[in-house]
Amino acid sequence: MRNSTNTYNPHVSVDCVVFGFNGEKLKILLIERTIEEQNFSDKKLPGSIIFEEEDLDEAATRILNELTGLKNIYLSQFRSFGNPNRTKNIRDRNWLERLTKIKIGRIVTVGYVALIKISRKIIFQSENTTANWYDINSLKSFQLAFDHNEIADAALEYIRQKVKSEPSMLFELLPQKFTMTQLRNLYDTIMGTTSDVRNFKKKIMQIEGLEQLNEVQKDVPYRAPRLYRFDKKIYKKSKKNI
Amino acid sequence: MRNSTNTYNPHVSVDCVVFGFNGEKLKILLIERTIEEQNFSDKKLPGSIIFEEEDLDEAATRILNELTGLKNIYLSQFRSFGNPNRTKNIRDRNWLERLTKIKIGRIVTVGYVALIKISRKIIFQSENTTANWYDINSLKSFQLAFDHNEIADAALEYIRQKVKSEPSMLFELLPQKFTMTQLRNLYDTIMGTTSDVRNFKKKIMQIEGLEQLNEVQKDVPYRAPRLYRFDKKIYKKSKKNI
Repeated sequence: MRNSTNTYNPHVSVDCVVFGFNGEKLKILLIERTIEEQNFSDKKLPGSIIFEEEDLDEAATRILNELTGLKNIYLSQFRSFGNPNRTKNIRDRNWLERLTKIKIGRIVTVGYVALIKISRKIIFQSENTTANWYDINSLKSFQLAFDHNEIADAALEYIRQKVKSEPSMLFELLPQKFTMTQLRNLYDTIMGTTSDVRNFKKKIMQIEGLEQLNEVQKDVPYRAPRLYRFDKKIYKKSKKNI
Repeated sequence: MRNSTNTYNPHVSVDCVVFGFNGEKLKILLIERTIEEQNFSDKKLPGSIIFEEEDLDEAATRILNELTGLKNIYLSQFRSFGNPNRTKNIRDRNWLERLTKIKIGRIVTVGYVALIKISRKIIFQSENTTANWYDINSLKSFQLAFDHNEIADAALEYIRQKVKSEPSMLFELLPQKFTMTQLRNLYDTIMGTTSDVRNFKKKIMQIEGLEQLNEVQKDVPYRAPRLYRFDKKIYKKSKKNI
């Protein structure tokens, strides 16, 4: 028998939308869901129902860790989803009831979003889970479990708005040193735009703390492009002075 | 017996933080809560538990209307609150159980925020409710029901961030024609700042669509100040061109 701290609350869940960037494409972290009796398999966001004695942020951190091994991730709550139909698919209900061994009713889910470097250590395969990075564009062809397509779309839109007002958050997704092409690719993938190469560079270089290094990218089979880095301290200082 | 559409869901509620501005001070709309047996009275945000067959936005719109008469209000979901202790105060539980006639457990609440003109028609007094505008500063001395102080503070912080990235939203709170002092008061109340009169005017006049009129304020016992207005169409057009 579970103790009261670990009793499930079958009315509220959290779902985490985790984005990463591999230098070319924006990726989303999804969990494989397999229903053996039906020989059926699909994908879902990392998420689950919360414990009775757990706050929402706490639940999001715990569940993301259980399903992916990720630790110390900055998860932002961005919106809750409560369409009464979101938990009415009998397949979703049966699956969740089998997993949690409790009766499931209507579940309101609290959406969290995180941007992480794609190099972060993830447990892709364990007894409990199969996680994987997928191209954000492939979402269009996946029918995710529950209303997870809607949640993923809303998270992307949320990030878009954030990048508009705070472009410096793009650097969360890049390695320490990166090329201008990587930065532009990232911006364009998130915003759904196709930026002009020269205009983009001119505009983005206005961000304080973004600087060109005296180094070029190594191990590339073509003319090696310059590397850039973003100094968060310089950026923060410049913001204070305004 | 209520029909299934109107069955309460005792696990999820919505709470609405409604801000208005009277030209001098930022106000918040609160509901009086009276517990007659205890000769006790305090205040709370307009909010309640949702119906079983109702989406979250729908619930927020319905409940705000039931408690204040307000219609066609643009409510933005800004954050959900799920501290397991938020519904543990026995007074709050008893009150809600008496009101809804169902057993209450842990409730996660979804926070909504709205900025409205203070001239909007409100039903302040009815069989079901006593609503009133209160100075935002008075929140410090009120102990609101449940965790409503925390929710109101978080809503104000949310608005602050929004105004930073989108100052034009200030005009939602002003009458059609307003003085520069009213605009500055509003900005300073929300942001918790004390702006320099001349600097503020110079900065704020950079917003496209904000224009000085050839009119002055009437019925004032001192030198009548100029009036301004904000043309949303001009503003939106200017944003498109960037």
